[in-house]
Amino acid sequence: MTTTEHKPNDASNNGGALTHFDASGRARMVDVGAKSETHRIAVARGRIRMQPETIAVIREGRAAKGDVLAVAQIAAIMAAKKTSEIIPMCHPLLLTRIDVSFEITSNSIEIEARVDTKGQTGVEMEALTAVSAAGLTIYDMVKAIDRGMTIDAIRVEKKQGGRSGDWQRAGQTEDQS
Amino acid sequence: MTTTEHKPNDASNNGGALTHFDASGRARMVDVGAKSETHRIAVARGRIRMQPETIAVIREGRAAKGDVLAVAQIAAIMAAKKTSEIIPMCHPLLLTRIDVSFEITSNSIEIEARVDTKGQTGVEMEALTAVSAAGLTIYDMVKAIDRGMTIDAIRVEKKQGGRSGDWQRAGQTEDQS
Amino acid sequence: MTTTEHKPNDASNNGGALTHFDASGRARMVDVGAKSETHRIAVARGRIRMQPETIAVIREGRAAKGDVLAVAQIAAIMAAKKTSEIIPMCHPLLLTRIDVSFEITSNSIEIEARVDTKGQTGVEMEALTAVSAAGLTIYDMVKAIDRGMTIDAIRVEKKQGGRSGDWQRAGQTEDQS
Amino acid sequence: MTTTEHKPNDASNNGGALTHFDASGRARMVDVGAKSETHRIAVARGRIRMQPETIAVIREGRAAKGDVLAVAQIAAIMAAKKTSEIIPMCHPLLLTRIDVSFEITSNSIEIEARVDTKGQTGVEMEALTAVSAAGLTIYDMVKAIDRGMTIDAIRVEKKQGGRSGDWQRAGQTEDQS
Amino acid sequence: MTTTEHKPNDASNNGGALTHFDASGRARMVDVGAKSETHRIAVARGRIRMQPETIAVIREGRAAKGDVLAVAQIAAIMAAKKTSEIIPMCHPLLLTRIDVSFEITSNSIEIEARVDTKGQTGVEMEALTAVSAAGLTIYDMVKAIDRGMTIDAIRVEKKQGGRSGDWQRAGQTEDQS
Amino acid sequence: MTTTEHKPNDASNNGGALTHFDASGRARMVDVGAKSETHRIAVARGRIRMQPETIAVIREGRAAKGDVLAVAQIAAIMAAKKTSEIIPMCHPLLLTRIDVSFEITSNSIEIEARVDTKGQTGVEMEALTAVSAAGLTIYDMVKAIDRGMTIDAIRVEKKQGGRSGDWQRAGQTEDQS
Repeated sequence: MTTTEHKPNDASNNGGALTHFDASGRARMVDVGAKSETHRIAVARGRIRMQPETIAVIREGRAAKGDVLAVAQIAAIMAAKKTSEIIPMCHPLLLTRIDVSFEITSNSIEIEARVDTKGQTGVEMEALTAVSAAGLTIYDMVKAIDRGMTIDAIRVEKKQGGRSGDWQRAGQTEDQS
Repeated sequence: MTTTEHKPNDASNNGGALTHFDASGRARMVDVGAKSETHRIAVARGRIRMQPETIAVIREGRAAKGDVLAVAQIAAIMAAKKTSEIIPMCHPLLLTRIDVSFEITSNSIEIEARVDTKGQTGVEMEALTAVSAAGLTIYDMVKAIDRGMTIDAIRVEKKQGGRSGDWQRAGQTEDQS
Repeated sequence: MTTTEHKPNDASNNGGALTHFDASGRARMVDVGAKSETHRIAVARGRIRMQPETIAVIREGRAAKGDVLAVAQIAAIMAAKKTSEIIPMCHPLLLTRIDVSFEITSNSIEIEARVDTKGQTGVEMEALTAVSAAGLTIYDMVKAIDRGMTIDAIRVEKKQGGRSGDWQRAGQTEDQS
Repeated sequence: MTTTEHKPNDASNNGGALTHFDASGRARMVDVGAKSETHRIAVARGRIRMQPETIAVIREGRAAKGDVLAVAQIAAIMAAKKTSEIIPMCHPLLLTRIDVSFEITSNSIEIEARVDTKGQTGVEMEALTAVSAAGLTIYDMVKAIDRGMTIDAIRVEKKQGGRSGDWQRAGQTEDQS
Repeated sequence: MTTTEHKPNDASNNGGALTHFDASGRARMVDVGAKSETHRIAVARGRIRMQPETIAVIREGRAAKGDVLAVAQIAAIMAAKKTSEIIPMCHPLLLTRIDVSFEITSNSIEIEARVDTKGQTGVEMEALTAVSAAGLTIYDMVKAIDRGMTIDAIRVEKKQGGRSGDWQRAGQTEDQS
Repeated sequence: MTTTEHKPNDASNNGGALTHFDASGRARMVDVGAKSETHRIAVARGRIRMQPETIAVIREGRAAKGDVLAVAQIAAIMAAKKTSEIIPMCHPLLLTRIDVSFEITSNSIEIEARVDTKGQTGVEMEALTAVSAAGLTIYDMVKAIDRGMTIDAIRVEKKQGGRSGDWQRAGQTEDQS
């Protein structure tokens, strides 16, 4: 993967103020009661980089003796459902769809998660949590043969729905998958 | 019920074979019953990259109106304790210590977690899960002002204790991020 | 136990294809976003078979010194609420009602659970999970005096609501006990 | 506060008395503090019965487009780790091994789970919970094509370790299914 | 299976009858399916009383070396989201807002939690659970220096929304805090 | 990555310093790895105050149509097992015994919980959490007929085991409620 040129979205939500803190500076779960219940989608991606020989073991394992990615995928789906337990200020949401997919390159596994809901707040955190859990599970399953693996480039690719409208990560997305 | 022909593979812990799969290729939680109960330590690191302006908001927020890192730190500690619920093949462990710390650079927050246990298997996954949860929580707390943040370079830095002995990551961390 | 003549519902959902797998053959949580939010009900049943003397202890215990079924019932209700954490591809749902009841026979305890929701997918899994948890809890509470108990005949009795309409198990329920 | 007259029953572990209730008839988590920490094993089995056509779909799915049993197996392993959250009076335990395997017959899937711990109380409930979760997950994955499936014959096959010694189910399993 | 004679009590929501029990006297999760989905708010309060010197340590800690209340606040928010897992007969709800605040007196910390939802049942239990978790967490954080602390006066202050209408605690609140 | 300058404070366990904070003032889960594994016991108490008529309903319900205290007791036991998930800095522990009992007075229900473990840290938080969950559950079960109930006087009565030795609450309980 080439350098990730992220271009943050400056269309800030409330003028640079952090919405997760109240007037006295402590954290709170922000009020989404006034937001409309709409169909919301988020897509997140990430990767885990490893030795080419580790990739080979996973590929073989997949056909012959086990499926690392099947375990990672289920872990990702279950973690997405746990997001509001893991991220303190996340609102609970009823997810209506979770898809997790992988692409194997010569020295990495690319992870993508799409999450949908019909709710009052977005599902970026659920998609990011799914990607993270997939990466961690892959690490766990093959760490005995490659401790140096690195989980990288976990980011939101796009979101749809909600007051702030659609958002798509800038430029280099194509070559990233 | 007639004879169930399953031949779980109790053998081998390494040598290129994935220990998380049995002879029929399905996943299992590997047997650690014969491992000795020793003091085990793991240190993991990662970072979340963001716009310098976002860093500034977090810095100010920390002093004046809230503490993004305090929330991230607690999320990390609580997630470490949940590791065996998130990573399917992880063994439950009684963690005896969790430390999470941060370093703020001009365009990233560096995250480090150290986890200790006295147990039959290592705590790398707990340390990695803590770092991941910290990164995700920081994302959640400031995503309204910077959607393009990326979580990167989540890796184990070192581990101590256990049969496989001590391990320290080689010096290549720089170029991996 | 004699043969259970179950007559599956061939009104299949998508022509024999498993809806829990995506095109590449991996699992996903299927999209229910387009389904309408309707009142849905499911009733499931099961039983735990035991020695007549064990039944006697439970009956006495119920009046005189403890109530195995009270513990089992609460376990069932709490497990129904945990269904989407236990069954990987289950959607989270807001249950609006859970009823669990028991009938004691000479050598078994019959368990019934009814679950309601107003949601986009059915509650069969929640009712089945409640019945299973009740059976497991009864086993746990009296296992010291009867290790040979068997949990049997866990099945959906009927479901109402949703696109696929109402469904009632065919009449062979009688001979199943 | 005036004197609280409660006299918890520390006595008796067996002899027809239910150990999960105290002298006033309410439930408690029994004291295992005096039990020795030994290697304990439990094996449980169960089955889910279905139409031969459903079996065929699972078999094909397994090779070609998805693996129902892979999902069920992971669900079983994760549920075993959750046992003390699901069964109210179960003690938390550090499981050191979980193996789940399947045998496909013409009209059923036979499920077996083996769980090990080094602890002060046995792991029968963990093995039974694993089998139940596997059965429920299989039901969930193919319910769209066969609603009439039945989960049957969930029972402990054997246990080893602990004060009460080894126990093996007598040969009556055949007629119980 | 022969006829199961259970007659769940669908009737009556009040009038001295406990709505959490069915006709046979066992617990159930009451049916809220017919209730309208409205905006519901609950405010609960409580306090933890301690030595003036302990208050001083918390105050200093807050400025100089740590923030007991920041940890307590996050614990409260996360516990509110867990309410239906902790209180057996509570319905799961999608909370849309959680605010937790503290007031430090000379010998106590006063805790207040406000919880909102748009749902079919009220959020008093969520607000009370948040207050309790905050109190317990404060206890945990300073127990090494003051074991005699007491958590007191946990109560609902007001609720809004729902069929039973608004409710405000009578005027004795003042002297209770 | 450049050097991370974090200096976790391993020192001091007491003497007025809060042990849950590191040198930079953030929270951590303190190191108990050097503590010896001993038998530890904690007893906590609390009460829920209510109208005499509410007491009467609970008493009757207990005999005739339901058992509020049975539900509260199970909730307390299950919550004790969840303590390290609810209280952020609590260490996970393997509880070996949990007893919860009640005494009904004319206008309150007195709650007592005793928790035992063999571990490296004490179980005060587990006992306090059990008492709190019992009080909250009683509130939930009868709130429809008495919204003004108050949960009071939650405190540790005694603890045994561990480096700091045995501790018994002084006789001032009376005036604290």
